[in-house]
Amino acid sequence: MKLSELATRLGLELRGDGGVEVFAPAPIEAAAPGMIIFVASAKYAPILKRSGGAAAAIVAAEFAAGAKCPLLISPNPYADFARVIGIFFPPYRPAPGIDPTAKIAPDAKLGEGASIGAFAVIGAGVTIGARAVLHPHAVIYPNARIGDDFIAHSHAVVREGCMIGDRVTLLDGAVIGADGFGYVEANGGLVKIPQVGIVVLEDEVEIGAKSTVDRATLGATILHRGVKLDDQVHIGHNCEIGEYTRFAAHVGIAGSAKIGKWCQFGGQVGCADHAKIGDRVMASAQSGLHGNIADGAIVAGTPHADMKYYRRYAALWWRIPELFRRVRAIENRSGVDRAE
Amino acid sequence: MKLSELATRLGLELRGDGGVEVFAPAPIEAAAPGMIIFVASAKYAPILKRSGGAAAAIVAAEFAAGAKCPLLISPNPYADFARVIGIFFPPYRPAPGIDPTAKIAPDAKLGEGASIGAFAVIGAGVTIGARAVLHPHAVIYPNARIGDDFIAHSHAVVREGCMIGDRVTLLDGAVIGADGFGYVEANGGLVKIPQVGIVVLEDEVEIGAKSTVDRATLGATILHRGVKLDDQVHIGHNCEIGEYTRFAAHVGIAGSAKIGKWCQFGGQVGCADHAKIGDRVMASAQSGLHGNIADGAIVAGTPHADMKYYRRYAALWWRIPELFRRVRAIENRSGVDRAE
Amino acid sequence: MKLSELATRLGLELRGDGGVEVFAPAPIEAAAPGMIIFVASAKYAPILKRSGGAAAAIVAAEFAAGAKCPLLISPNPYADFARVIGIFFPPYRPAPGIDPTAKIAPDAKLGEGASIGAFAVIGAGVTIGARAVLHPHAVIYPNARIGDDFIAHSHAVVREGCMIGDRVTLLDGAVIGADGFGYVEANGGLVKIPQVGIVVLEDEVEIGAKSTVDRATLGATILHRGVKLDDQVHIGHNCEIGEYTRFAAHVGIAGSAKIGKWCQFGGQVGCADHAKIGDRVMASAQSGLHGNIADGAIVAGTPHADMKYYRRYAALWWRIPELFRRVRAIENRSGVDRAE
Repeated sequence: MKLSELATRLGLELRGDGGVEVFAPAPIEAAAPGMIIFVASAKYAPILKRSGGAAAAIVAAEFAAGAKCPLLISPNPYADFARVIGIFFPPYRPAPGIDPTAKIAPDAKLGEGASIGAFAVIGAGVTIGARAVLHPHAVIYPNARIGDDFIAHSHAVVREGCMIGDRVTLLDGAVIGADGFGYVEANGGLVKIPQVGIVVLEDEVEIGAKSTVDRATLGATILHRGVKLDDQVHIGHNCEIGEYTRFAAHVGIAGSAKIGKWCQFGGQVGCADHAKIGDRVMASAQSGLHGNIADGAIVAGTPHADMKYYRRYAALWWRIPELFRRVRAIENRSGVDRAE
Repeated sequence: MKLSELATRLGLELRGDGGVEVFAPAPIEAAAPGMIIFVASAKYAPILKRSGGAAAAIVAAEFAAGAKCPLLISPNPYADFARVIGIFFPPYRPAPGIDPTAKIAPDAKLGEGASIGAFAVIGAGVTIGARAVLHPHAVIYPNARIGDDFIAHSHAVVREGCMIGDRVTLLDGAVIGADGFGYVEANGGLVKIPQVGIVVLEDEVEIGAKSTVDRATLGATILHRGVKLDDQVHIGHNCEIGEYTRFAAHVGIAGSAKIGKWCQFGGQVGCADHAKIGDRVMASAQSGLHGNIADGAIVAGTPHADMKYYRRYAALWWRIPELFRRVRAIENRSGVDRAE
Repeated sequence: MKLSELATRLGLELRGDGGVEVFAPAPIEAAAPGMIIFVASAKYAPILKRSGGAAAAIVAAEFAAGAKCPLLISPNPYADFARVIGIFFPPYRPAPGIDPTAKIAPDAKLGEGASIGAFAVIGAGVTIGARAVLHPHAVIYPNARIGDDFIAHSHAVVREGCMIGDRVTLLDGAVIGADGFGYVEANGGLVKIPQVGIVVLEDEVEIGAKSTVDRATLGATILHRGVKLDDQVHIGHNCEIGEYTRFAAHVGIAGSAKIGKWCQFGGQVGCADHAKIGDRVMASAQSGLHGNIADGAIVAGTPHADMKYYRRYAALWWRIPELFRRVRAIENRSGVDRAE
């Protein structure tokens, strides 16, 4: 594709030779002739001044000066690079049509343009909007209601009665609405608390492979607009997750926790039940959250601490044996009794 | 439903107006006219004295005095509330019958009243008791033996030869009896140790969505009566888990560990291989267990410590930099050599 | 089976009575008449000198002296014991043949001797080598290329275009090639970065139940020859894992991390994105790795530390309150100002 054509499709300003041929997008490390890269930070800007690099680059205007290759000027180079990837390598999408092996309840309602794969199951009373893609073996339990542009990969599941907005994607094996975890001791054993609420996924939510979002005991577990879960994340019953919050793999949120908007949790973070986490909270990988956390906090460690404290004390842990020796030496030499 | 009818169905003593209409159970936070709530602790008892609250409440006798609404007196209000949820909102259960798309081996034995969903697979030599519910896409490998009142949700799997008691539930995508993880170095590579034991799940076990219970190398991995696993829990080969023990999401138990009865592990707890954990041990979220732990212990942290120690030292971590400064100041001013 | 026959099949030297009957392999704890055990370390060698133990044992030559039972002398007793397990208890393998319910694209290529289970799906353009076993409900998306002796257990998935070598096994519900986790903020929301790379699994890789190996954004996520993942492991997009490296359950490796050869990570270990971990690194359970780690390092803790430091300081944590008291006592008695 000629760079000028790409500029037109992206609606970006072209600087330099629009006739250059671009064959594929590439990460900066793989910059090479024929490739288009993006530069979004000063750290990587110098690469643009080298010869023999990429055929073209998408850059913020501030890094454009002195570049050796033609440029597309963008207010958000990474976002436009994402669009370039989609233009050169459109993600796999099966053709519309309903596989004859799919099992669809007679009263289920499916919008136009659906692509329903082999052995997919759509239960009684289900409603699904336009252009749904159910890959093979997806299962929709009865009475789920799902919006437009739904994508469910292989073995993804929506349990009975759950409600899903528009443009929601479930990756392979994701489970929406399995029973919450609740038992009460009685008669020398454990009695299960029926889990009869639902899960609500608002528009643009994406759920990673093998992640589980449990239904509420009563009421609803809610993931607001644009929440993104990586693979193998777990969300307990009755949680509420604010819009555009992102959780990396293996994050676990215990029951009834409430997480704010635009948070980002690293991998394997845990959050205690009934915790209240503010907006734009960043939690580093493996941290353990509980109680209340204020808007904008950056936390780390278990139990969690403000990142600036965590960095200081965790950096001193390895010197704790030394500190014991130093205190012992002071006690020995200054004649102070040891106060154990 | 009239409260008097509910009292009869639950077998509980009614105090006050039995003619009041109850429309649904609700958590205390959602107490409102028409709702029935439960009060099991002194903390929430005052709500009963407010006007305009719930239509009725299930309470322990000790909190009954002064209530503004009619009551059902219960020795275990939470357990009876669980029964009320099940009465008002019976969990989804498909009708009996065998879907024509299910694939059942000719020699498999199925008890009466089974409900077998679309594309379910039951292998050769399998025995399943009465009233089984296999939701769509459940797979039972050959020669598994399963008791009465079995429920397997979508994509749940029981591998070859495993043995399952009565009233066992597998949530969506749970895997019982995948290979344990064992390899030995040989000839410059790794040789797999065949995993040819089984898994035994005793009566009343419940396994969460996407949880994995590995088969034994030789012998059996055993979950005793009433064990409850949340979603995404992993149990390694040859483990033994005592009756009524509960594990929250993402708990991982390494091979050959032995865990006692009535334990409760928080989310993301890990337990080392060959550990021996006593009865009624409580482990807080993300703790890392190893070695031997005595009956009744309450532990936290990695490596695990008694909760009372953990609370004290973890609360002081953030002051470690201060302690270094204080020791340095003492050294400077008292002329003691620094003993590094 | 007579011991002499077993010796012949294994190609091992027999010492003692080859006519003894061996009925089954057993772990040392279960040594009993009729059983064959193995002894690979000095710790367990004394058991061979007791009467009434196993019928026979596989041992290293150095532990052979004084044994009360006949022996098979082996340079690697554990590996030969693994072979014995496979001889006495061959793991379940369905017969060759294609189930009539399987859905195989007309242009898919399947090698000789395949066993394709009920409701398995093989997409357009897929190539699979000889002797493949697809258990029920395995799904191969279009254009995947897979070598010989492939085994996919129930609900295992290979996504579009991924490349898999020979002798690879996927346990139940493993997902190869789901989308990597990448979004960029734009226009007040999040834009998904298309994930259009692939996953490469080289020969002899084994993936545990419910584990997820994400496809690369661009390029490939690579697991080199002989990598073994336990259940519920997650490998992020664009990672590269060196040959024969083993990860225990719940390990999570963030995007673009590079891990060396022959590493062993305990359960629930996390590794930060873009980390560079050397060869033969051992990471103890729950540790959190980041940055660069040298070949042969043994690490523990979050953030990770050299095991020898970690052991020392983690063993002193519980005494931190005592240290505060001792420093306070010194300050009080020596008249030093408290330097907080």
